[in-house]
Amino acid sequence: MYPRVPTNGADSHRLWPRQWGRLGWPAMEPRLSAPLSSMALPEGFRAAGIHCGLKPDGALDLGLLLAEQPVPATAIFTQNALQGAHIPVCREHLHRSNGMARAILVNSRNANCATGDAGIEDARSCCRELARRLGCAEEHVLMASTGVIGAPLPKAKIIDHLDSLLSNANAKGGMDFARAIMTTDTYPKAATACHQAIRVTGFAKGSGMIHPDMATMLGFLITEASSNGDLQEQLQAIADRSFHRTTVDGDTSPNDTLFALAGGTGKASTTECQTEMLSVATDLAMQLAADGEGATRLVTIQVRGANSEADACLVGRVIATSPLVKTAIAGRDPNWGRILSAAGRARVPFSTDQARVWIGDTEVFTKGVPQPHREDLASKYLKDSERVVIGIDLGAGDNQADIWTCDLTADYIRINADYRT
Amino acid sequence: MYPRVPTNGADSHRLWPRQWGRLGWPAMEPRLSAPLSSMALPEGFRAAGIHCGLKPDGALDLGLLLAEQPVPATAIFTQNALQGAHIPVCREHLHRSNGMARAILVNSRNANCATGDAGIEDARSCCRELARRLGCAEEHVLMASTGVIGAPLPKAKIIDHLDSLLSNANAKGGMDFARAIMTTDTYPKAATACHQAIRVTGFAKGSGMIHPDMATMLGFLITEASSNGDLQEQLQAIADRSFHRTTVDGDTSPNDTLFALAGGTGKASTTECQTEMLSVATDLAMQLAADGEGATRLVTIQVRGANSEADACLVGRVIATSPLVKTAIAGRDPNWGRILSAAGRARVPFSTDQARVWIGDTEVFTKGVPQPHREDLASKYLKDSERVVIGIDLGAGDNQADIWTCDLTADYIRINADYRT
Repeated sequence: MYPRVPTNGADSHRLWPRQWGRLGWPAMEPRLSAPLSSMALPEGFRAAGIHCGLKPDGALDLGLLLAEQPVPATAIFTQNALQGAHIPVCREHLHRSNGMARAILVNSRNANCATGDAGIEDARSCCRELARRLGCAEEHVLMASTGVIGAPLPKAKIIDHLDSLLSNANAKGGMDFARAIMTTDTYPKAATACHQAIRVTGFAKGSGMIHPDMATMLGFLITEASSNGDLQEQLQAIADRSFHRTTVDGDTSPNDTLFALAGGTGKASTTECQTEMLSVATDLAMQLAADGEGATRLVTIQVRGANSEADACLVGRVIATSPLVKTAIAGRDPNWGRILSAAGRARVPFSTDQARVWIGDTEVFTKGVPQPHREDLASKYLKDSERVVIGIDLGAGDNQADIWTCDLTADYIRINADYRT
Repeated sequence: MYPRVPTNGADSHRLWPRQWGRLGWPAMEPRLSAPLSSMALPEGFRAAGIHCGLKPDGALDLGLLLAEQPVPATAIFTQNALQGAHIPVCREHLHRSNGMARAILVNSRNANCATGDAGIEDARSCCRELARRLGCAEEHVLMASTGVIGAPLPKAKIIDHLDSLLSNANAKGGMDFARAIMTTDTYPKAATACHQAIRVTGFAKGSGMIHPDMATMLGFLITEASSNGDLQEQLQAIADRSFHRTTVDGDTSPNDTLFALAGGTGKASTTECQTEMLSVATDLAMQLAADGEGATRLVTIQVRGANSEADACLVGRVIATSPLVKTAIAGRDPNWGRILSAAGRARVPFSTDQARVWIGDTEVFTKGVPQPHREDLASKYLKDSERVVIGIDLGAGDNQADIWTCDLTADYIRINADYRT
């Protein structure tokens, strides 16, 4: 009776990558198709994904990211009071290793969460067994689990397959890894960017932030750039402008984790590669929003004219989590009143007399004055575009932020209400 | 092209009052059936509800609450940055009158919101015209509007019907008033209580807090008790424990307003009647949650063992607004992981090792240990009961709060996404 990964036709309305060609977003296409599947990882890294018996349908469910030697590593964890067992283990290992790691072991289908001390000991055993096989210190192995809450981790299945996992690890194993970490995702999520031949590659899983009981979001950024020693600050800054700007319903899961590994074999530092690291992270964050359960629209919410970037983010998040805004988009309804009203409850002061609201290129509310004659145009845009922009200018300052989300459809309800019946 | 009041079968799944008898809540029944419709208002008050041409189907759309003379009055308004035009007018009138009022004029179907200075002038004209007919000062008339955002108030229709409204006002007009203020509500909302023959009567409209563009919630408490002079503080305390504990999706509308009028003809003060005032307000708040769009379950979220009442409210609100918890209830799924995980993201510190989660009378998570063998029982409870309780004990203190909400069904999406198509 634990929550299960849905096996129904949950992807029937997904816009990504089924309707890929219609998104007009060529820059992202290679990341999900053939080029990435055969693309080499950053130098000094290998990856693998195998089936160890956790997913009942035989799909890949155990993944590995492996560096040739311990490299600078850092992670950001969920702020949920409930935390998966891998989180205290990772914290401890990163502390003991002084921020160095060789491997990240990831299992899907089981979150190892709300499993008490036994769950923590299970995660520790998996790390220990992998470290023994690698001949490295236990603290150089990190772990992440994602899947159902409250069920004991089947650690024997994992440990029994570590030899096979290691023998499968290779420089072209990125897509197997991306597949092995999927839960309710409808496609694997990966992205890459280059800075003067220095590669930054990222992987993520999660159908938006909408599965706190499915241990929503895992993210991995690896690069051959060298760390300047402030990898943690860099990762935080990157997350604040990428993953932390993607939301489906504002939920944070107990297992959310974002890792970064900096190999150091390349001739540039992570600081020099920061633009590319942010670009990869942003790409993954948008893929998460687009794969939101039941989503038919990827929505970018542009907040402009805010007093501070924090205000802009706050207003954007409130709009992005408003069921009324999201159902309006699902209904292709250019309902500017809902956008304005959601912005109004963010507790960020602004005057509607100075505010503007737009949907696509169409301004539907201008400094206190509705533009009802333009709503047909905005409605057509919502019907025709699978990647839509809605925006608000608060007229209060010069700061801005973009937030990504998806629409809220009856499929979301069906997936989340009915999948056990 | 303004947002419209849905005219589809939105009430097909409403549990209230159609399935009234099955709720096991006899104390509330009289408030919605014959007794209230003919029940006299508190002494010194009259009420009316007529059709003035705002609702296209001829339904009641203009309401009036009237005191024989100016009485102590106060109001609490929305915290949304976008505010309906009636709000600045009410603030000004209450200020000028030093907290006294004779009449509250209410129209539905039009929120008079995002209508600029012209909208404020329209509200002022309506108050002025009614004051002239009553022979009282303009500031002794308050007003509230609820309905669509962004359309000019048809003030001529309202003013043309003021004479008719006044001639209809009588001591048994409460239910007409309750009907006249409805927007997407599926039934009129009223409640009453007595303290030693001193009556407290309340009215409200709103399908939960889920219509920021329908100007969600209006509430009215009237009593023949006398005010002790701290009516504002009393109303705030009452709202904090009633209307502010009902949520459907966390939205606050631009027009939310709660009024209180204390007639003073009775032999008790509002302080002495505070229990009854809270009881009436709580009753109305629960009616709002039960009438949430698409709702099939009224959900009481019990938060126990919190460090403070504020913490308990915060945790309860996060659970009550979690789409995953609400869809699980719609699916009759005793998904304690979602409850625990929602509580975990409220930023209120607690340890899952000390926490307990229950659904109805069934404890499904006990101090870190899941109780999967009890989930069948909890699932049966969710299937069989239309008024359900879910609870969490944080094990962190002695404070508690109850929060009311409803489940989230595909009907909610249909009503909010498709009603324009």
